Amino acid sequence: MTVDINCDMGESFGNYQIGNDEAIMPYISSCNIACGYHGGDPLVILKTLQNANNHQLALGAHPSYPDLQGFGRRSMKVPTNELSAMLSYQICALTGMAAISRKKIAYVKPHGALYNDMAKSEELSSTVINTILQINPELRLIGMANTVTEELCQEKGLCFSGEFFCDRNYNNNGYLVARTQQDAILQNPDVIANRALNFVKTGKINSIQGNQLSIKAETLCIHGDHPNALRIAKAIKASLTASNIQIKCIA
Amino acid sequence: MTVDINCDMGESFGNYQIGNDEAIMPYISSCNIACGYHGGDPLVILKTLQNANNHQLALGAHPSYPDLQGFGRRSMKVPTNELSAMLSYQICALTGMAAISRKKIAYVKPHGALYNDMAKSEELSSTVINTILQINPELRLIGMANTVTEELCQEKGLCFSGEFFCDRNYNNNGYLVARTQQDAILQNPDVIANRALNFVKTGKINSIQGNQLSIKAETLCIHGDHPNALRIAKAIKASLTASNIQIKCIA
Amino acid sequence: MTVDINCDMGESFGNYQIGNDEAIMPYISSCNIACGYHGGDPLVILKTLQNANNHQLALGAHPSYPDLQGFGRRSMKVPTNELSAMLSYQICALTGMAAISRKKIAYVKPHGALYNDMAKSEELSSTVINTILQINPELRLIGMANTVTEELCQEKGLCFSGEFFCDRNYNNNGYLVARTQQDAILQNPDVIANRALNFVKTGKINSIQGNQLSIKAETLCIHGDHPNALRIAKAIKASLTASNIQIKCIA
Amino acid sequence: MTVDINCDMGESFGNYQIGNDEAIMPYISSCNIACGYHGGDPLVILKTLQNANNHQLALGAHPSYPDLQGFGRRSMKVPTNELSAMLSYQICALTGMAAISRKKIAYVKPHGALYNDMAKSEELSSTVINTILQINPELRLIGMANTVTEELCQEKGLCFSGEFFCDRNYNNNGYLVARTQQDAILQNPDVIANRALNFVKTGKINSIQGNQLSIKAETLCIHGDHPNALRIAKAIKASLTASNIQIKCIA
Repeated sequence: MTVDINCDMGESFGNYQIGNDEAIMPYISSCNIACGYHGGDPLVILKTLQNANNHQLALGAHPSYPDLQGFGRRSMKVPTNELSAMLSYQICALTGMAAISRKKIAYVKPHGALYNDMAKSEELSSTVINTILQINPELRLIGMANTVTEELCQEKGLCFSGEFFCDRNYNNNGYLVARTQQDAILQNPDVIANRALNFVKTGKINSIQGNQLSIKAETLCIHGDHPNALRIAKAIKASLTASNIQIKCIA
Repeated sequence: MTVDINCDMGESFGNYQIGNDEAIMPYISSCNIACGYHGGDPLVILKTLQNANNHQLALGAHPSYPDLQGFGRRSMKVPTNELSAMLSYQICALTGMAAISRKKIAYVKPHGALYNDMAKSEELSSTVINTILQINPELRLIGMANTVTEELCQEKGLCFSGEFFCDRNYNNNGYLVARTQQDAILQNPDVIANRALNFVKTGKINSIQGNQLSIKAETLCIHGDHPNALRIAKAIKASLTASNIQIKCIA
Repeated sequence: MTVDINCDMGESFGNYQIGNDEAIMPYISSCNIACGYHGGDPLVILKTLQNANNHQLALGAHPSYPDLQGFGRRSMKVPTNELSAMLSYQICALTGMAAISRKKIAYVKPHGALYNDMAKSEELSSTVINTILQINPELRLIGMANTVTEELCQEKGLCFSGEFFCDRNYNNNGYLVARTQQDAILQNPDVIANRALNFVKTGKINSIQGNQLSIKAETLCIHGDHPNALRIAKAIKASLTASNIQIKCIA
Repeated sequence: MTVDINCDMGESFGNYQIGNDEAIMPYISSCNIACGYHGGDPLVILKTLQNANNHQLALGAHPSYPDLQGFGRRSMKVPTNELSAMLSYQICALTGMAAISRKKIAYVKPHGALYNDMAKSEELSSTVINTILQINPELRLIGMANTVTEELCQEKGLCFSGEFFCDRNYNNNGYLVARTQQDAILQNPDVIANRALNFVKTGKINSIQGNQLSIKAETLCIHGDHPNALRIAKAIKASLTASNIQIKCIA
């Protein structure tokens, strides 16, 4: 049995360091690389690509709304043609920079507010999916499971991978508890690792209100800027390995 | 007999319009497309690519130092590895966006201060040339004729096209009169057109101090943000056509 | 009889020119100065202050969401403490720069999406009003008439001036027809001038659906980036003057 | 006996944390607050002002070239009128935000490349000094001792405070060893504290080449983004206190 673990990487910017990328890479299989709109800069992208290649990780584009100051976590009403152009710009820049080392981008995972807005909006999901299909129909989209994003991927013929957020609490409706709320983020590495293992085995998780949710997910997400990120990554790998579950990117 | 004419395009940004791109395209053969660092944004890039394709223009990347506020016209001391990464980011974004319409980028023409700094710096020229060779060794570089940029292209095996600036005065040393000086920019379309024609026929031009300069140039540059840009473009085409010189991109 | 006319000014940025500020200043009484977040840069601010002082215009701060690429016309979900800080930064920068020439800022007029979002949100209006009161309780706020913005100003003791948009169509609910819709913007200078005159005389205007709306406005707004801005400004002044209505800033 | 210690603060940006401001404040007397051009954002500015006020620190504006990506450490050729406007914008924004809490800015310390470029350029020093005098002639300038910056302050009547960099090596010519060089930055807190104490007692320091330099400095600078910043701050305070030297801002 195998499971993919993806993590946001390359979100440092200039003199600003965020996350602990190199330390975490041994514990994941897929690397979501920021493209410069919410984090990342060209030098950070090159270094992240190099590190990810050293660890043989699957490479993903991690595009965002244009909002460095808000780290891509603020919803913005961007016209669809402009959003599509922004996504193309980000994905193409990353794709070309990966190609310098003869590597390919395997998937796209939208970031932050764009990711969450998509899960609630057919128009947004449609814009993102159409843009990816135009660029390269063999790309996958990592998105929120059980949402319009997933439905539209099936309809339009884009390969979709749902994900499970190991370190975040869920509401009854299947959406994440907002970062602005207390209890949005789980802190204890062992609790998180146990939760991840149970989810991989059962596909089920308890919401913060106590209901059991079924989530169809192929990949586990961990957050590289979590204060305990490295300990979480290690704990998850240990707990999965102990159950003979291998961490491996989606073929 | 043929000559290439290149022009900076796609330098508008958001609500800010600059240049008169669509009107000028019928009079040129090569389109230098801003990549978002000194001008241009993703939507502007897509529209410029579409317009350029409609006019069957050769496509060039027009990367810059990161300086929207200064329109890329301020020298910046950027470490070479960071500059190289910034160039890759810009060129790759444009290349990928052109590929959506199955078009290729034919050349790179650095913008503004970067262009001028390269002409005076072996280190900068070397950084730019090496970066282009890594991305795609079949790209050409449009640069300042008779400079270290040209020399290093020959040495490193990158195809180089020198250019002649129709609307700018030259100093005796072959560099352009700086924009901060009076007389940097010629204004009269007929004077400029006549100057362009003479140059194409002879390969020579008089400096502002009155000396005759020989410039080995394959392409003429006109500026799309010149207040008389359209009239200049028309006058040049008329004067070249009247002498049976065809405007055609470099094969 | 007098009426104030306000106009957005100083929205150029670096090499990008927008509007026709100097030409329009003779026809207005209040100058809304962009503060660098949706347009404007420090040099533009200084020049705009100087021009406005030459024309003896009342000076207003014209702060925005942080969005140069979208010209402040995209709604953004900014946490209230962060929005308050952003407003302080913009208003204080302008206030201090005016003080270099011993001038005072008389009012604040929020820009674009922020302006429109305030009209529909008690929380946003409250944040903006509280921020202004903290900086200087003698400032006025120019905002959307007949809205929660106006109500909260009265409640909190901030001087409010409603405005009438001469060149925009209104919906039955008293809000502007969105820029994304056809018919949002009126084009004909004579129609606009006539509309302005009728409004000043009666305080009433017909919505695009044909209903008569009453608007309690002390100031008329014209848009400096309207393609016919100068002709509109002249036509309005001519039509007001012909009816013995003087253009004068609010005391 | 007293000495001032200044430290760069408020350089975090959005989601990006840099430095350890609150922990270091008990060990310094003057707080250089980033103004948003190389670091800092409006919310960070407000929080830094509040913290600085809680620790009764003297407040300084820490303006920069406009270069977040380069953290203000890249020289840029900015025209003097534009640079002056940029400085006004930054200093005025901070001054106004301090005034909300009825506090005053006591001094200006230019940041990074601007600071170093000033020390070598009469034109730049002159631009900065004239700008400060226009805004408020009672402000002080913290700059590089024994340079044209100091000379011009005396000539123009602006109060100048030279500084000594506790954690940086000096060249024989009195300038700092560039950050791009090895040995630019001292690492050991005890070595740095001892160096600071000796300097305060003698006004002399050994260059990296071994020559003794005399530096006329009223303030010691420590760097908040140094990996050992807090330990350095504590060690300096301990060593000064042990010699009965009090840390106190310049009156």
